[in-house]
Amino acid sequence: MAPVGGKRAKKGILERLHSGEVVIGDGSFLFTLEKRGYVKAGLWTPEATVEHPEAVRQLHTEYLRAGSNVMQTFTFFAGKDNLESKWKEVNEAACDLAREVAEKGDALVAGGISQTSLYKSHGSEPEIKENFQLQLEVFTRKNVDFLIAEYFEYCEEAVWAVEVLKGSGKPVAATMCIGPEGDMNNLTPGECAVRLVKAGASIVGVNCRFGPEISLATVKLMKEGLEASGLKAYLMVQSLGFHTPDCGKGGFVDLPQYPFGMEPRVATRWDIQKYAREAYKLGVRYIGGCCGFEPYHIRAIAEELAPERGFLPDASEKHGSWGSGLNMHTKPWVRARARREYWESLPLASGRPYCPSMSKPDAWGVTKGTAELMQQKEATTDQQLKELFEKQKFKSSVA
Amino acid sequence: MAPVGGKRAKKGILERLHSGEVVIGDGSFLFTLEKRGYVKAGLWTPEATVEHPEAVRQLHTEYLRAGSNVMQTFTFFAGKDNLESKWKEVNEAACDLAREVAEKGDALVAGGISQTSLYKSHGSEPEIKENFQLQLEVFTRKNVDFLIAEYFEYCEEAVWAVEVLKGSGKPVAATMCIGPEGDMNNLTPGECAVRLVKAGASIVGVNCRFGPEISLATVKLMKEGLEASGLKAYLMVQSLGFHTPDCGKGGFVDLPQYPFGMEPRVATRWDIQKYAREAYKLGVRYIGGCCGFEPYHIRAIAEELAPERGFLPDASEKHGSWGSGLNMHTKPWVRARARREYWESLPLASGRPYCPSMSKPDAWGVTKGTAELMQQKEATTDQQLKELFEKQKFKSSVA
Amino acid sequence: MAPVGGKRAKKGILERLHSGEVVIGDGSFLFTLEKRGYVKAGLWTPEATVEHPEAVRQLHTEYLRAGSNVMQTFTFFAGKDNLESKWKEVNEAACDLAREVAEKGDALVAGGISQTSLYKSHGSEPEIKENFQLQLEVFTRKNVDFLIAEYFEYCEEAVWAVEVLKGSGKPVAATMCIGPEGDMNNLTPGECAVRLVKAGASIVGVNCRFGPEISLATVKLMKEGLEASGLKAYLMVQSLGFHTPDCGKGGFVDLPQYPFGMEPRVATRWDIQKYAREAYKLGVRYIGGCCGFEPYHIRAIAEELAPERGFLPDASEKHGSWGSGLNMHTKPWVRARARREYWESLPLASGRPYCPSMSKPDAWGVTKGTAELMQQKEATTDQQLKELFEKQKFKSSVA
Amino acid sequence: MAPVGGKRAKKGILERLHSGEVVIGDGSFLFTLEKRGYVKAGLWTPEATVEHPEAVRQLHTEYLRAGSNVMQTFTFFAGKDNLESKWKEVNEAACDLAREVAEKGDALVAGGISQTSLYKSHGSEPEIKENFQLQLEVFTRKNVDFLIAEYFEYCEEAVWAVEVLKGSGKPVAATMCIGPEGDMNNLTPGECAVRLVKAGASIVGVNCRFGPEISLATVKLMKEGLEASGLKAYLMVQSLGFHTPDCGKGGFVDLPQYPFGMEPRVATRWDIQKYAREAYKLGVRYIGGCCGFEPYHIRAIAEELAPERGFLPDASEKHGSWGSGLNMHTKPWVRARARREYWESLPLASGRPYCPSMSKPDAWGVTKGTAELMQQKEATTDQQLKELFEKQKFKSSVA
Repeated sequence: MAPVGGKRAKKGILERLHSGEVVIGDGSFLFTLEKRGYVKAGLWTPEATVEHPEAVRQLHTEYLRAGSNVMQTFTFFAGKDNLESKWKEVNEAACDLAREVAEKGDALVAGGISQTSLYKSHGSEPEIKENFQLQLEVFTRKNVDFLIAEYFEYCEEAVWAVEVLKGSGKPVAATMCIGPEGDMNNLTPGECAVRLVKAGASIVGVNCRFGPEISLATVKLMKEGLEASGLKAYLMVQSLGFHTPDCGKGGFVDLPQYPFGMEPRVATRWDIQKYAREAYKLGVRYIGGCCGFEPYHIRAIAEELAPERGFLPDASEKHGSWGSGLNMHTKPWVRARARREYWESLPLASGRPYCPSMSKPDAWGVTKGTAELMQQKEATTDQQLKELFEKQKFKSSVA
Repeated sequence: MAPVGGKRAKKGILERLHSGEVVIGDGSFLFTLEKRGYVKAGLWTPEATVEHPEAVRQLHTEYLRAGSNVMQTFTFFAGKDNLESKWKEVNEAACDLAREVAEKGDALVAGGISQTSLYKSHGSEPEIKENFQLQLEVFTRKNVDFLIAEYFEYCEEAVWAVEVLKGSGKPVAATMCIGPEGDMNNLTPGECAVRLVKAGASIVGVNCRFGPEISLATVKLMKEGLEASGLKAYLMVQSLGFHTPDCGKGGFVDLPQYPFGMEPRVATRWDIQKYAREAYKLGVRYIGGCCGFEPYHIRAIAEELAPERGFLPDASEKHGSWGSGLNMHTKPWVRARARREYWESLPLASGRPYCPSMSKPDAWGVTKGTAELMQQKEATTDQQLKELFEKQKFKSSVA
Repeated sequence: MAPVGGKRAKKGILERLHSGEVVIGDGSFLFTLEKRGYVKAGLWTPEATVEHPEAVRQLHTEYLRAGSNVMQTFTFFAGKDNLESKWKEVNEAACDLAREVAEKGDALVAGGISQTSLYKSHGSEPEIKENFQLQLEVFTRKNVDFLIAEYFEYCEEAVWAVEVLKGSGKPVAATMCIGPEGDMNNLTPGECAVRLVKAGASIVGVNCRFGPEISLATVKLMKEGLEASGLKAYLMVQSLGFHTPDCGKGGFVDLPQYPFGMEPRVATRWDIQKYAREAYKLGVRYIGGCCGFEPYHIRAIAEELAPERGFLPDASEKHGSWGSGLNMHTKPWVRARARREYWESLPLASGRPYCPSMSKPDAWGVTKGTAELMQQKEATTDQQLKELFEKQKFKSSVA
Repeated sequence: MAPVGGKRAKKGILERLHSGEVVIGDGSFLFTLEKRGYVKAGLWTPEATVEHPEAVRQLHTEYLRAGSNVMQTFTFFAGKDNLESKWKEVNEAACDLAREVAEKGDALVAGGISQTSLYKSHGSEPEIKENFQLQLEVFTRKNVDFLIAEYFEYCEEAVWAVEVLKGSGKPVAATMCIGPEGDMNNLTPGECAVRLVKAGASIVGVNCRFGPEISLATVKLMKEGLEASGLKAYLMVQSLGFHTPDCGKGGFVDLPQYPFGMEPRVATRWDIQKYAREAYKLGVRYIGGCCGFEPYHIRAIAEELAPERGFLPDASEKHGSWGSGLNMHTKPWVRARARREYWESLPLASGRPYCPSMSKPDAWGVTKGTAELMQQKEATTDQQLKELFEKQKFKSSVA
């Protein structure tokens, strides 16, 4: 199989999915650029598109080389509600960067919007839709190829997003950041999928918040919900690059190690090959990643599905499949690792004998509309922080 | 403390160390660029300087932003023995890239050489020195600021390297990839340090092969060896960004998870702040990282030692010290994590309940000159691989 | 609260449960006596009642002191099918030992039968009932206070057992060794409970095969099944004294460490206090243990529920509640452990850094009637063993 | 090999060791009887010899069946200093019970004394020796076969004990409860061994406080110390039945889980076979156990060394060597476990995914004579307990 390169007429997203192609998404921008020094954890906003475009361009390039067929605009949390006066400039720069890199390979550009901070603070439907509409106008002007509404924990808000995006006439994908327990209003994954498709989404699934296994379990429930309703849509999954068997309903945000102690949970390339295979078996054809997914994880998807797709990604020129690149190593016991069975069955080690394998999630039973969940305008004061800390100690001691 | 920027007359490496300054090294190029798709594991050679200079430039830039004071040329394993006809071009490009980025901040350029594959195959001293001499000629022509001989597991070969580099008249640092058990000829770390200083190194220490705690333990032994001999040198440490409490003498290469299953061992930023503080207390003033060290780890060194240095690195504009950036998070229990005590005392979780915390290293008791350790010219055949595999099974079953 | 002693008129089992009393069962005989040298693992038969009566008497005595209200005859797997000519003598001796100790305190004698090896080998209903009938005749002659049919993995066979026992006119308890996934014929726990009560059991629940948490989850399902059917029965739980979060449907027998590597899973006394409290909250009033439960675990049930029951067991004279007995220890940090909060929140440590926290159960998808599950008459030959081993390796490599 | 039984003329302890025989000690009384309900943790005194002789007799019997050649009197902490007026009666009953059971097999009776609470409270040499002398008078009157001074953390006090015991003319064994770091006055294990032998001990070694591996490492240092001094003595080891790789100098008492959360650390029978083999290889010929050692662990020593000794213990009639008893199990995958290689290479699982594999020991740097270490006369008050707790929190947060 030869790596693919060069120009050719690009097929649209629905055309690809309709013909049975596997579409490979991209991976993490927020977490990856945080580690590279360009995104601030906690805010998680993408002003780097303006401030450090070379860093964003480079990351797009790495995903393209790794096999991504979609350059998603780096516009997460980039609505007017979060970015204020900068929002327009950031969205425009994001579109330009995505397009610039997409043109260098076989990738489409997808404009992305995500849940707002307005919703939890009781923002009205028109107010929230207006927010989405503003971003959509940039995407339309920049002529992205399709649209993604992602990272919604409330189905209602996701439906509003789809309704707005649908107005553009472009294909719409919608992914929620929920697990098998469903959305924050207790709608099941199946019911969420049904509502999203009825609202106009052609592609539905999940992204973020949960690791590979749990994300696939949720997509399976969505698939079953659609089948039970006689509806059809393409399936999509962009899971975390972290293992989170210990997540509660709220996902990885509630794990005590979020976001600065997640290292031991990072998936290996072999974990991701397994994820890609399982997704494929489930009938998912849009497969990518979210927080914690690095370029080599995307390459792992492309390598696992190379037999089906007929080609390897560019970055595989620097990767021996299943560790075969070790076959020249000086140490014979390292050469002995140049085998698929070795890596498939290898138990890892955390190197941390004072740490457990699982954690108990924080979760205080607060829901939409609770005072504690209102978006703050000001940083938490030391006094407030102290109160929260005491509350956290109490909650975890009675867990 | 304000981030540092702008031009100013740069002090040399010895001048800095002499005045008591902390010099922050850079982090991993091989492992980091492997994950980005530009380096092939197993070969571990730096042809990316020629093939994808933008990727190398970007990584240098990230380290500079994170606080590195040294742009080390990406010339690992870049001798004629490994790279053949490409060696010169790769070394030249590496120098140019390092210099280009160094000029944008307060960083020096260091030309780096590493152990040869000749040594284990009984190469002669003149043959090996010739190899080093070729690289040195490029570094001299490109006028790097100082030189580093790194990743030597045999003190004898490191001494030869120092002797060659010393001929340039530039300051020489020398770091070995050994642990507390000493080099592969059973010289203690203290004795290694003494010989390196006597050969002409002004800065000595360790890099790679072992995690933070073990690397510092080794440098401590070197320090004691120098003191016992009445010699003086500056100390340097560039440890792995992985936790390796279970390493044997050979270091992380022998761990069964090397190199494609190391994820759970990756250090957090808080682990690295502790490492930086301990290094500082030990008297080490050149502190950086090796494989597994990402830009945010380097930033962690710069943040931990900001009180001593008087300033923060550029990348700290995107980082709240000790998690303070979480103080605006929607979920109150995540806001409660915006505290130093939280992250300092948090037990992590591997998210892998079927995996242990430690591994038993592979190690077959083979040493320099053993047939099995000769550098191969051809890839291992399937038959050889099968034999190695059987041997590995046998070795680990009797361990 | 004063320990209870002396004679008093004993209330029957149903009388006690009817009045809301907590009845405390006993713990493990097979696993405990195996470690003491009187029972052979693999066979798991109780010929010790005849061969070493003093060892059986001593264990009954320890459970009585620990607070047990039931001395269950040590007649597990003691049907004619397993013990052949010895069966009668063993059953009789078991009854005498249980009665002798029961008379020394406030305990009843329960005659116990368990699943047969005939059932899986397609034994007929009359054949199997005949087997139960023989044991029942001994129990009747020895005038036990009530009867327990326990350790059934097929509801059908348990129903047959209840039908036989019911003929005696004594109260009948029936516990299955199933988890939340139900019996081996895929009946749910709720359905099993309904059938057992309809067959005549006054007390239903589970014993063995699963740890405390899972056992309670199963009893909860039984309770819900009964409620949905409008049936009433007392609830009973006698879980393993091992933690088995990683069990599949077959329970701990399938865990790779069964039966000689279960040590790290043993519950602490504090784990069992929690189990007792949760059982009580669920409405279970017959609370005991099975394999892995030692006398101190039974004491933990009695201590946890002492406030409700109004008294402590005899053995509490040698136990400071919640570690209070440490308050005279020489080392101050050990004295500091004499507190409930200390033990309630303490993370344990396995002391085994090369071991994981969970295992993948063996399970080959074989079911009743499969040739491989027929009871063998002869020991497995070396050749058969080798074939099984190869099969096991294959099954676990594809898991 | 046939189990040994019946009467025969018994050889003395030194005669056995001189002829090269392996002498198997017994296991835990305190921890084992605590779990059976007869000993109070924290006090750890043996009044059960008087209060519940049948329970003590039963445990002696189990060890005899398991292969023990020594019935050690249950007289730990049974000096006048700890037991006051009851001391004499307890010591006498202990001697009678040990003798009664020893007569039923090939076992000797050893009278045992242990460190006093006087020593840490600055008791004088005459005062402490007087305490030992009183116990010795009972042992002499009851005519025990030899004497053991065990569980000393200060060599000085152990030497005093040996000096007293030596006066009886009977052989004296002396074991300290120290690890490789030596005694609490910083004497090395080698130096301790030398002093004990010079004081008159014929057998020296360690007991308690550390797990199998560490105990053997300490005995090895003792052996080397003796060799360096040209002294000769027989070696003895009676390690914990717990794994304690995370112990500091103070041993398992300092582990946070001592004594009520040690379950996950309990050694398997296979761990103990390995311990027995390693001890034998090291030249140790008196091999037994201490806290955590149950009868089946003693049997494991006897089974491992059966080839050398030429016979199996009585209790092996209920044990298939290396799991062979499983070869009749109904489930084929359990039958497949009837093999030595299976159990030798099996990784265990803790079943506790929220727990780590290691702990950080408590240890406050207090030493002999510190006010905090004086033996208290009264139970710790709630106020003192609170202060200790705060101190503990502080110590562990700065660790």
